[in-house]
Amino acid sequence: MEATKTPPAREGGLQTVRMISETIRLVTDGRCELYNLTERIAAVLLRHDVKDGMVLLSSLHTTLALFVNEWQSALLHDIKGMLNKVVTPNDGWRHDDPQHSDCDRRNAHSHLQATLLGHALSLGVAKGKLVLGQFQAIIAAELDGPRNRDLALQIIAT
Amino acid sequence: MEATKTPPAREGGLQTVRMISETIRLVTDGRCELYNLTERIAAVLLRHDVKDGMVLLSSLHTTLALFVNEWQSALLHDIKGMLNKVVTPNDGWRHDDPQHSDCDRRNAHSHLQATLLGHALSLGVAKGKLVLGQFQAIIAAELDGPRNRDLALQIIAT
Amino acid sequence: MEATKTPPAREGGLQTVRMISETIRLVTDGRCELYNLTERIAAVLLRHDVKDGMVLLSSLHTTLALFVNEWQSALLHDIKGMLNKVVTPNDGWRHDDPQHSDCDRRNAHSHLQATLLGHALSLGVAKGKLVLGQFQAIIAAELDGPRNRDLALQIIAT
Repeated sequence: MEATKTPPAREGGLQTVRMISETIRLVTDGRCELYNLTERIAAVLLRHDVKDGMVLLSSLHTTLALFVNEWQSALLHDIKGMLNKVVTPNDGWRHDDPQHSDCDRRNAHSHLQATLLGHALSLGVAKGKLVLGQFQAIIAAELDGPRNRDLALQIIAT
Repeated sequence: MEATKTPPAREGGLQTVRMISETIRLVTDGRCELYNLTERIAAVLLRHDVKDGMVLLSSLHTTLALFVNEWQSALLHDIKGMLNKVVTPNDGWRHDDPQHSDCDRRNAHSHLQATLLGHALSLGVAKGKLVLGQFQAIIAAELDGPRNRDLALQIIAT
Repeated sequence: MEATKTPPAREGGLQTVRMISETIRLVTDGRCELYNLTERIAAVLLRHDVKDGMVLLSSLHTTLALFVNEWQSALLHDIKGMLNKVVTPNDGWRHDDPQHSDCDRRNAHSHLQATLLGHALSLGVAKGKLVLGQFQAIIAAELDGPRNRDLALQIIAT
């Protein structure tokens, strides 16, 4: 293990920062579908002229999750398959049972899968670019669509 | 996909920020139990008069996890059931075996479930409010209680 | 539930901050292996004289994940076993099928496991120390090694 970049202590310089809040809309078109948000998030950062900082991208929904991985067709198929293997739909979940729940969407597995994936992502920005590797994409997982979804961005930026 | 709110570039304004650190105590009362922390976190932000920023909420324990989802009785039951389906207790885990481990709590599954859920949450704050959707709650998952638990908050705030 | 530390409102004081970006290299030596990064991250913070703030540690790879849990030999064995139970390798994944994918690493399960663990961690820093509990370690999960891996750090610090 070795550092590939070792700036001197106190590099970065004292500076004031901006706090930016914004909401973006994602219109989904399937019950369980994945969406590549990378270009949209990059465009928001460009519009705000963000040089360095962090972005917090949050789903405002309990059945819409976020994660970072490769945007490859075969893998996207596998991700959806994996979610339904790890948390099986219609597996006697109490949230799907009208005796215990007033939710009639039969979406217990959607909530449970979202809980495992996570509702938010923190992403770095350095020199005006999202800090992502060559094969990394910012992916939204619609787990109970189609719906109109809102995602919040909080940006701390120089 | 369309932006619902598109502030002009450089909105936010240069400003200085506050860094606030705080610890809150959670006294749990079951082996595997869920706790709604939303109101408590909101109260901390109010007490510090946080207008805009981010909160990092971290579990200081390896068998206490955090996630965001809906606070509904039937679903909470399902979340606990799902965790024990995905990671079965007493499944021959080495951490539970006195030949390999000096831990006598038989809590391997608690650690493993915590690893899948995650130990921390980043949450946005905008205009003095936690950035959460209508059905989202901040939930602590006690996976090996009952215990006295500490959660750390780091707040970057204007 | 009670607060263990309740600073007065507006504690923290207005202050300017530094934004620091850095990349560290992790050379892994197994197909599926875990690495304790806690001391390395602490050393980066010390070198930059970080007093208070947040660190965002991000994997720049789609088969290298990050999580926080206990660094205990028996438990590390269980974490690797759990990952392969939750997402079975060679389970007919399309990403492993040359008819659907140009990836010949048979690493679909590595991607899927990484998706469940997460690609990044936000960590607090208070009074010059990483905000971690007594048994918590920052752990990198190499899921398709051995490889040379890069991890990005974004630090917001006073």
